[in-house]
Amino acid sequence: MEGIMMKRFAIAYLLCALFLIFIASVPTTESQLGERAAISEKTQICIDCHELYNPGLVMDWRSSRHAQTSPANAQEKPKLSRRVSSPAIPDDLQSYVVGCYECHSFNPSLHEDNFEHFGEQINVIVSPNDCKTCHTTEAEQYTESKKAHAIGNLRENPVYSSLVEAILSVKTIENGNIVPRKASQITEGESCYNCHGTKVTVAGTKVVSIDMGDIEVPDLTGWPNQGVGRINPDGSYGACTACHPRHSFSIEIARKPYTCGQCHLEPDVPAFNVYKESKHGNIFESKKESWTWDTVPWKAGFDFKAPTCAVCHNSTITSLTGEAISERNHNFGSRLWTRLFGLIYSHPQPKHGSTSVIKNKDGLPLPTTLTGEPAAEFLIGPEEQEQRRENFKKVCRSCHGLSWADGHFTQLDTTIAESDRMVLAATRLLSKAWKKGLADQSNLFDEAIEQKWIQQWVFYANSMRYASAMSGPDYASFKNGWWRATNNLQEMHDRIGSLKKKR
Amino acid sequence: MEGIMMKRFAIAYLLCALFLIFIASVPTTESQLGERAAISEKTQICIDCHELYNPGLVMDWRSSRHAQTSPANAQEKPKLSRRVSSPAIPDDLQSYVVGCYECHSFNPSLHEDNFEHFGEQINVIVSPNDCKTCHTTEAEQYTESKKAHAIGNLRENPVYSSLVEAILSVKTIENGNIVPRKASQITEGESCYNCHGTKVTVAGTKVVSIDMGDIEVPDLTGWPNQGVGRINPDGSYGACTACHPRHSFSIEIARKPYTCGQCHLEPDVPAFNVYKESKHGNIFESKKESWTWDTVPWKAGFDFKAPTCAVCHNSTITSLTGEAISERNHNFGSRLWTRLFGLIYSHPQPKHGSTSVIKNKDGLPLPTTLTGEPAAEFLIGPEEQEQRRENFKKVCRSCHGLSWADGHFTQLDTTIAESDRMVLAATRLLSKAWKKGLADQSNLFDEAIEQKWIQQWVFYANSMRYASAMSGPDYASFKNGWWRATNNLQEMHDRIGSLKKKR
Amino acid sequence: MEGIMMKRFAIAYLLCALFLIFIASVPTTESQLGERAAISEKTQICIDCHELYNPGLVMDWRSSRHAQTSPANAQEKPKLSRRVSSPAIPDDLQSYVVGCYECHSFNPSLHEDNFEHFGEQINVIVSPNDCKTCHTTEAEQYTESKKAHAIGNLRENPVYSSLVEAILSVKTIENGNIVPRKASQITEGESCYNCHGTKVTVAGTKVVSIDMGDIEVPDLTGWPNQGVGRINPDGSYGACTACHPRHSFSIEIARKPYTCGQCHLEPDVPAFNVYKESKHGNIFESKKESWTWDTVPWKAGFDFKAPTCAVCHNSTITSLTGEAISERNHNFGSRLWTRLFGLIYSHPQPKHGSTSVIKNKDGLPLPTTLTGEPAAEFLIGPEEQEQRRENFKKVCRSCHGLSWADGHFTQLDTTIAESDRMVLAATRLLSKAWKKGLADQSNLFDEAIEQKWIQQWVFYANSMRYASAMSGPDYASFKNGWWRATNNLQEMHDRIGSLKKKR
Repeated sequence: MEGIMMKRFAIAYLLCALFLIFIASVPTTESQLGERAAISEKTQICIDCHELYNPGLVMDWRSSRHAQTSPANAQEKPKLSRRVSSPAIPDDLQSYVVGCYECHSFNPSLHEDNFEHFGEQINVIVSPNDCKTCHTTEAEQYTESKKAHAIGNLRENPVYSSLVEAILSVKTIENGNIVPRKASQITEGESCYNCHGTKVTVAGTKVVSIDMGDIEVPDLTGWPNQGVGRINPDGSYGACTACHPRHSFSIEIARKPYTCGQCHLEPDVPAFNVYKESKHGNIFESKKESWTWDTVPWKAGFDFKAPTCAVCHNSTITSLTGEAISERNHNFGSRLWTRLFGLIYSHPQPKHGSTSVIKNKDGLPLPTTLTGEPAAEFLIGPEEQEQRRENFKKVCRSCHGLSWADGHFTQLDTTIAESDRMVLAATRLLSKAWKKGLADQSNLFDEAIEQKWIQQWVFYANSMRYASAMSGPDYASFKNGWWRATNNLQEMHDRIGSLKKKR
Repeated sequence: MEGIMMKRFAIAYLLCALFLIFIASVPTTESQLGERAAISEKTQICIDCHELYNPGLVMDWRSSRHAQTSPANAQEKPKLSRRVSSPAIPDDLQSYVVGCYECHSFNPSLHEDNFEHFGEQINVIVSPNDCKTCHTTEAEQYTESKKAHAIGNLRENPVYSSLVEAILSVKTIENGNIVPRKASQITEGESCYNCHGTKVTVAGTKVVSIDMGDIEVPDLTGWPNQGVGRINPDGSYGACTACHPRHSFSIEIARKPYTCGQCHLEPDVPAFNVYKESKHGNIFESKKESWTWDTVPWKAGFDFKAPTCAVCHNSTITSLTGEAISERNHNFGSRLWTRLFGLIYSHPQPKHGSTSVIKNKDGLPLPTTLTGEPAAEFLIGPEEQEQRRENFKKVCRSCHGLSWADGHFTQLDTTIAESDRMVLAATRLLSKAWKKGLADQSNLFDEAIEQKWIQQWVFYANSMRYASAMSGPDYASFKNGWWRATNNLQEMHDRIGSLKKKR
Repeated sequence: MEGIMMKRFAIAYLLCALFLIFIASVPTTESQLGERAAISEKTQICIDCHELYNPGLVMDWRSSRHAQTSPANAQEKPKLSRRVSSPAIPDDLQSYVVGCYECHSFNPSLHEDNFEHFGEQINVIVSPNDCKTCHTTEAEQYTESKKAHAIGNLRENPVYSSLVEAILSVKTIENGNIVPRKASQITEGESCYNCHGTKVTVAGTKVVSIDMGDIEVPDLTGWPNQGVGRINPDGSYGACTACHPRHSFSIEIARKPYTCGQCHLEPDVPAFNVYKESKHGNIFESKKESWTWDTVPWKAGFDFKAPTCAVCHNSTITSLTGEAISERNHNFGSRLWTRLFGLIYSHPQPKHGSTSVIKNKDGLPLPTTLTGEPAAEFLIGPEEQEQRRENFKKVCRSCHGLSWADGHFTQLDTTIAESDRMVLAATRLLSKAWKKGLADQSNLFDEAIEQKWIQQWVFYANSMRYASAMSGPDYASFKNGWWRATNNLQEMHDRIGSLKKKR
């Protein structure tokens, strides 16, 4: 039978061979591009060497949009499809593809990590301030976001930074007692500040041996890191590579939930886990290969059939016919009315990305008091909340009827309120322990009962809220939700009964 | 070099351009269909408006089989490939595609959610009883299942519903004691009843403002929800959309494990997690893109190379040559002989989907006594168990030799027995605490030691059993299995030593 | 419009129909192969029957490279692309595809599981020693690995085997005390030894009924199992199917992280979970469908753009132009300098795959003392460590600059040291409890406080280290990292305060 088939399909084989050859000759890029722009002479010099030593790095770049198109071409796109937002890209960048030299040579005087490298002045790190040259709006929006201030929001806030210290200190046992010793900066950069970002500093230069001989390079501390709030050697905040990784600058990767899931995962911020459990996550995992991931604008129901994080939180979304549903914004909190992430209660979104300036009624740098009263002057008001919420609902309405969307938000409101009451119960138990001298309030985070209190808000109440917001019900019930919150209260209660008064 | 290639492949480009255009012109549907049937006039009116307001919703439907084929065409398929099972689809439905109006207008007199909408009588919710018009066998089988009775199986069972209440109540602290307050119905619908289903009721009507002006719509409570046991406004039980989501009614999504994983995940029912850890899950994740997901029947080794949940539990499976291996059944427990999900011990499958009628020897509504004796008259007998088990094994035999399959089931039997003994040990410890007055038996679920007992069966013994059934060994060892079960017993034992007698 | 399109694309339809037919006629194999070799007569007899009874099994084999190519063809490949490594494949195997009979008939005199089956002598199990006939180097390397010795490394080590027993024993309650009873061998094979491997023994023969009548087959115990250290009925160690599953022998599946993730997952060895959280895992999940999975050698930046487990730990990796980056090795520890998996502390890699021979200064069979001093004579020295580390870095350098790679390894060193200090703190607390008679040192693993100590190293310190090695920061912070390690110390400390002296 096979023999017969072979003869009958000879012509098919021929056609397909041609087809396969064609496929192989197509530039491996994220979308169909126009004529390919030229590589600048300086970038070509970089490539000549680095393609030998870092072939994967150069190959990654070759697959990128940056390697295919020039700013001049990029600006010709209709406004809604345009990925560059600067009205004034310098002339000398216009006609070359966006290559090694173009990005790694910006603003040398600002860059403490600038060094002389085979005759050129090169920056090790490309910062959001450099990307801003072409992507102005995005960089500016980002600068406003809580993400850009992610380091200060921890480090400059005495309450949160004492929580970090309680967790990250290396413990030794002295006379049977636990004595915390400051952890190295590296340990911080490997845990909390891996996502929040490190401060990258230049300690001087060092000589390293490569195949071509010894070269002198900047000696960086806090590096490598690609946290969202990284403080760069040029003084700018953030790392575009946190979401558009490394030399492909992929919009596809940024739009897939795995990116957000790198930092927003259980037990503290279970957004990714809840999404995966949700119907939206199910549809995404089941059908993602048939969706289109790199078109701008991104068309609801056509390019994708269920939202990913980016759809609701920051991408430009339109209908198939191009009617705007929501506009791109790289200030990721800007569409949100409530902050689900309870610190220690849920609260209206802060007005500014830098949150360490917040002071509650009791003088603590927290968005609510310990009993849940919001520090209103630092948070957006009801009107702004209402408007953001209505805008947000528009995205839901692309695929859901009005009853569905309205019902969903009503459910969320209720869960937010009830989860906050479960935190309040834990706070009341802890307050009792503090008042009776069974625990010591001077550090809020270093005793076992205090750590149960922390779990009540960071793990359990947050899980309930994310579970509601994105419909992942196990995170509201047995997995870090009502079950754990209930059991945790019981454990706190029983522990208080067994504690002895502290001296 | 590229220049040369360009010339040589000019013809390839031409062929491929044609190919790409062709691809774009193919209806985006799950499988090759015959001639496309017409859209009814009434459905077209729905589309004209909703395509503007809910573009994603309409686009989702357009991608569905429903949007491409008519019942008349569907019935022409050979029996084994047929997806409709009604012998008597009404004439007026026969020749149109299955559109908005067709589904949202059934049985208006039964539907409390029926309302007048721009001149037509429309139901908000399409229920299993509506789908039954064409999918009779599937709807009838489903009605028999535990899934269809998922609400009553919790709510009408005094033991389980007191567990739900212990978990879901909002706790306040009064005089240092934890006082549970009934949680809102919404909280229930966001957690346990999100999967089990809500009762959707019509509280009246309400006026909502849309772009076209004010309209009056039913005011639903318990909505949105797509739990498997949802009680619909027409009195029917269930939601087909729980597995065939929303307007694509996809068989592909239902066959992928992400769907089942929305509700069957750790820590309580770790089926999805164990599957992912298993060799079957590994092969699925590694090769799924090369499998065929929407053919009926589904051919073992040809369409798929490792089972998903649907293969073993409900799909029509045949060999490549069409020999039946197992027959489709939407009563999802019907192939199973044992119920691994221990409540509180594993037990033979219940005879009926409604389990709240079960009474054990001690008069409790549980399938076993607290020491593990089955309530035999409510459960299937050994003969039925044996027959189901042998049928089940046939699916394994598609890819595994006899020694392998037999050995697997022997291993499972042993693990079931030993996991039940680990529950018994916990029950004995708790009984001791109850007898000595160290804990209060009046509510089985509200004290810390009782909550450890719950974890022993809901989390740990269940994990061991699922781990054995699907070969995900970490769920039998360090992840919620023997390790936790062992440690939990130790903690229960130590706690008893530290408890004081209750008044 | 559709009508017009139909006409214009008539020719496209024609071309595509041919294309589709062509696709269907292509052998479903992992890569483009040369001329298909013949199936041997004996294998054809196997197929004739088993295709009826195990269609999925045969279909799986048909999709394999083994079913398409003969050893003679395989040996013609250039050295770097060759998948067979034996210089002396027997003549009678050379010209047929690698089929049922070829593999299941090797070395019958060694195979206790050999039996007469319809006139032929067949082995149930194909062992690494059988695969070695063609894949000599791979089998030999594997034999050196810790994986091959995975059973003895647990069972022959009195300390680790007492941990296994503490966990896996079935507990009963007698006089209110927990009494462990030895678990069945099956329970061991379903949990720890599912990954480590079982000893498969032949208990005799048994008669089984199949459709063709009664047949006599070997009666195996410890079967089914595909653990990495399985002891086979021919005396060899291991199971190639653990990673190259079952009759497809897929290199693609082995290269995907799901395979490693079957055994290396949280909470004890969270390698897979950390990978998924990492940037590498993100890029893998986002782009894997566009990568090439079955080429040998595997080209960095071209076939794949981010590493999977196999890239760093065992595959042959080259640049696009074929320059070697790292060489295939099936001794999976051979590239590693440090063993992150702390037992109980991290330590240099053992010199030999069989680790039960190790003795520390205190005479315990552990790679370090209880306070962390390495059993240096059994572990590789600093020079060997340095060399492996430098080789490992080469893989990183494919895509990362030198500063990045150097910085990464510096960070890892620090985390390893600090995580070990967190284990030491727990050990100090436990020692105090032992010394004061508050816990009983005769069994290290059976009391609640000892189990907290175990978690400190198996769960928390390991998580920190894997989190650092592969950059999954939540596993260093809230998810089983510093948070849990800190909280666990606090709980150990408080528990000591509440313990009474043992008689």
